[in-house]
Amino acid sequence: MRTVEHAGDGENAPWAEVAPEAARRLLAAAVEAFAERGYHATTTRDIASRAGMSPAALYIHFKTKEELLHRISRIGHDRALALLTDAADSGGTATRRLDDVVRRFVRWHAERHTTARVVQYELDALAPEHRAEIVELRRRSDAVVRRILTEGVRDGEFDVPDVPGTTLAVLSLCIDVARWFNVAGRRSADEVGALYADLVLRMVTAQKQ
Amino acid sequence: MRTVEHAGDGENAPWAEVAPEAARRLLAAAVEAFAERGYHATTTRDIASRAGMSPAALYIHFKTKEELLHRISRIGHDRALALLTDAADSGGTATRRLDDVVRRFVRWHAERHTTARVVQYELDALAPEHRAEIVELRRRSDAVVRRILTEGVRDGEFDVPDVPGTTLAVLSLCIDVARWFNVAGRRSADEVGALYADLVLRMVTAQKQ
Repeated sequence: MRTVEHAGDGENAPWAEVAPEAARRLLAAAVEAFAERGYHATTTRDIASRAGMSPAALYIHFKTKEELLHRISRIGHDRALALLTDAADSGGTATRRLDDVVRRFVRWHAERHTTARVVQYELDALAPEHRAEIVELRRRSDAVVRRILTEGVRDGEFDVPDVPGTTLAVLSLCIDVARWFNVAGRRSADEVGALYADLVLRMVTAQKQ
Repeated sequence: MRTVEHAGDGENAPWAEVAPEAARRLLAAAVEAFAERGYHATTTRDIASRAGMSPAALYIHFKTKEELLHRISRIGHDRALALLTDAADSGGTATRRLDDVVRRFVRWHAERHTTARVVQYELDALAPEHRAEIVELRRRSDAVVRRILTEGVRDGEFDVPDVPGTTLAVLSLCIDVARWFNVAGRRSADEVGALYADLVLRMVTAQKQ
């Protein structure tokens, strides 16, 4: 994959919470390597070399390649859940909160598309206990959206015959932005977010016919 | 990826158009290997072995690993375009045709999810001329959906402020089914198709407010 992820600002700054700097550099190198060649075709030697470090220096921070993938996946899912929860708890009507959730979740997947692809496509490479932990974080993200839909239906703002199915569709639409988003494309992350928020609100709004 | 693709019936039967049988077996083995380990971590020896053949026997049918990926991608995209075109040309209102397009495109990505993942996620592993050929097929699939939306707007059935953006969203929603669909899950391919057709029609239907 030939796209490059830039250090965004604020909530989307890659790996800002990781210390020391060497560990941060290794995570960034691992994401690049996994995105280009796939998890199974990447060695810890490749990752160390991309980060300008020796394999021995890598082992100080990460014992295995799987530990790198798990760390990447864990941070990515923690951030995604935090931004969804933040948008969902921001107050206001269900319409307002769903609009915010979609804009922020789309922006996240557009700006962090390389990380998001690795995280989504290499889920099966995680050790079983790590996979279970990530699946639980995804279940919680799912619950955030489901709650907004349920409250919107209760308050008469939304008409959603199938709340779990619509939740799945809304999240899927946002996640798939990571697959096709192109930083050199004609739409910015914010423009895609605005378009998708409008489309999602149409999906759930009571049809007056 | 631990999911298995079963030989469906009719239009979705995997590789039915490929002859001889040995070539068909090699394509099926390549899809499995690429899905499990990724393109770059798979060797032609792995593929031959999965198909119960010698590397020499593989080379009779495919000169390189890239030729296998290209063949898989080409057949997949040809089928997808054919089913979209077929649904789009079936006559009836834009609403009727869009409903049919979404149901069939979702079913395709659900039933052929392993192939679809390989095709979507390994696009960058294709040789430049093959990648250009596939991108052209995708452009034509895109045009099929865009035409239905444009005609629906013209005929007063649809209200779509951003036709290219909505086309992208509709296709993205259907394609991402390949990522999350689980044959052991609680929804069948047809049930997801029906749900998504309803959600997409809500996205594009004139809002009477």
